[in-house]
Amino acid sequence: MYKETKSRSIVKTISWRILATLTTISLVYIFIGDTTIAFTVGGIEVFLKMLVYFFHERIWDKLNFGRHEIQPFVVWLTGYARSGKSEIGKQLSVMLKEKGLKVEHFDGHSVRDLFPQTGFSRFEVNQHIERVGFLSSKLEKQGVFVIASFLSPYEESREFVRKICKNFVEVYVSTPLEFCEKNDKKGVYAKARKGEIQNFPGINVDYEAPKNPKINVDTSMMTIEQSANKIFNYLKKYI
Amino acid sequence: MYKETKSRSIVKTISWRILATLTTISLVYIFIGDTTIAFTVGGIEVFLKMLVYFFHERIWDKLNFGRHEIQPFVVWLTGYARSGKSEIGKQLSVMLKEKGLKVEHFDGHSVRDLFPQTGFSRFEVNQHIERVGFLSSKLEKQGVFVIASFLSPYEESREFVRKICKNFVEVYVSTPLEFCEKNDKKGVYAKARKGEIQNFPGINVDYEAPKNPKINVDTSMMTIEQSANKIFNYLKKYI
Repeated sequence: MYKETKSRSIVKTISWRILATLTTISLVYIFIGDTTIAFTVGGIEVFLKMLVYFFHERIWDKLNFGRHEIQPFVVWLTGYARSGKSEIGKQLSVMLKEKGLKVEHFDGHSVRDLFPQTGFSRFEVNQHIERVGFLSSKLEKQGVFVIASFLSPYEESREFVRKICKNFVEVYVSTPLEFCEKNDKKGVYAKARKGEIQNFPGINVDYEAPKNPKINVDTSMMTIEQSANKIFNYLKKYI
Repeated sequence: MYKETKSRSIVKTISWRILATLTTISLVYIFIGDTTIAFTVGGIEVFLKMLVYFFHERIWDKLNFGRHEIQPFVVWLTGYARSGKSEIGKQLSVMLKEKGLKVEHFDGHSVRDLFPQTGFSRFEVNQHIERVGFLSSKLEKQGVFVIASFLSPYEESREFVRKICKNFVEVYVSTPLEFCEKNDKKGVYAKARKGEIQNFPGINVDYEAPKNPKINVDTSMMTIEQSANKIFNYLKKYI
C-alpha cells in the first residue's frame, strides 16, 4: 500500500505555489494596474495558501478515490533447455522494472536451488510447475508482474497455471532442439544422450509444445534482446 | 504499482479550487475593499487556476518522490490442531484489510487442498512449510502482509521461514493439548489416538513449541477476537 510522505506534500506545495502565485500576481495586476498591490496580495497569498494547500494534500492522502492499480500479468516462458528462457526473462524483468512496475522473475535454478529435493519425473515436474504457478498467481493477485522461465514441458501443468492466473501470457521459446544442443556449453544434452540424466525433454521424453501461445520467439533467428523486445511490445498496451 | 486516475485529479482540482478561490477573494477584498473586483479576480482565477492545477497534478503523478510503501510482515501462527489458528488468522486478516493494507491469509486447508499429494512425515511437513514460507517471503518482499496459520510443529522449518522473511512475527497459539482435543468436533484427535492418522503432533509425534515467540495467545483463556486483538495491537505500531 502506498502512502505519501510529508516531504512529498511539502515539495508539491512549493512547486504549486510558484505556479499559482505567478498567476495571481498577473491577474491582480491586469485588473488593478498597480504592481505594489499585485505583489502585496501575491506575497500574503504565498504563505496563507501554502498552509492551506499542505493540509489539503494530507487529507487527500487519506482518500483512495482514483488511485488504481495496474492489472499485472504472468509471463510464462516455455521451451527446450538452453533456448534462452532465463536470459530473455531477466532482460524483460529489467525493462518492466524501468517502467516503475513491481516485478518478480523466477527460473528453474532460482527455485530448485532452494528446494533441491524436487525430482524430474513427469509427476514431480508437474507438481513443481504447479507450485510455482500458485506462487505466481498469488503475486499477480497482489499487483506484482511475474515472469517465469521454466522448461515446463508438459501441457497439463501449464494448463493448471493458466487456469489459476488472471492474465496468463504464454510465450513459446520455439528455438529448435538442434540449435539448443549445439549451444549447450554445460554439456547437459550430452549427459542426457548418454543416459546419465533421465526424463530430459527432447532426448528421453517429449517436449509438448504449446498449441496456442500468445507470443512466439525463436532465439536461433533473433537475439535475446530482440526476443525480450518482442514480448515487451506485446505487453506495452497493458501497462 | 499505484497510478492516479484523471478523475482523482479532477475532483482534487475542484476541492482545492473552492478552498483557494475563497482565500483569494477574501485577500483581494481586504486590500481593495471592492467586492466587484474581488469577485471578478476570483471568477477568472477559478478557471485559469483549475487548468494549471490539473496539469500540475498529472505531472506529479509521474514522480515517485515521497511515495513510500509500508514495510509489511509475515505473521506466523503455530500451535496444536483445533487451537484456533485459522480463525484468529481470518479475523486478523479482516482487521488489517480494514486499514487499507494488502493482505494474504494462508492456512493448512487452503494450500493442501490445491496440493493434495503433500504427505505428513516430518520431511514432507517441513518441505510444505518451507514452500509456504518461500511464497510468504516473496509476497512480503512485494509489499503484501502475510498471515500464515499452520500447525508447523517442527522448529527447523519455522527457522527456515524466519530466515528468508524480513519481518517474521512468530505467534505461539499456546492453547493446551487437552483443551484442543476436547473442542475437536471433527474427531481428528480420536482418529490419531486410534492410530488411523500417523504423525499427529501431540499424539504420535512431539509438537516443538517456539522458544521465543513474539506473541503468545491461549484460546482456552481468551476468545478468538481477543487473540486477534492482542496480535493487532502488537502490529499497530508498524502500520
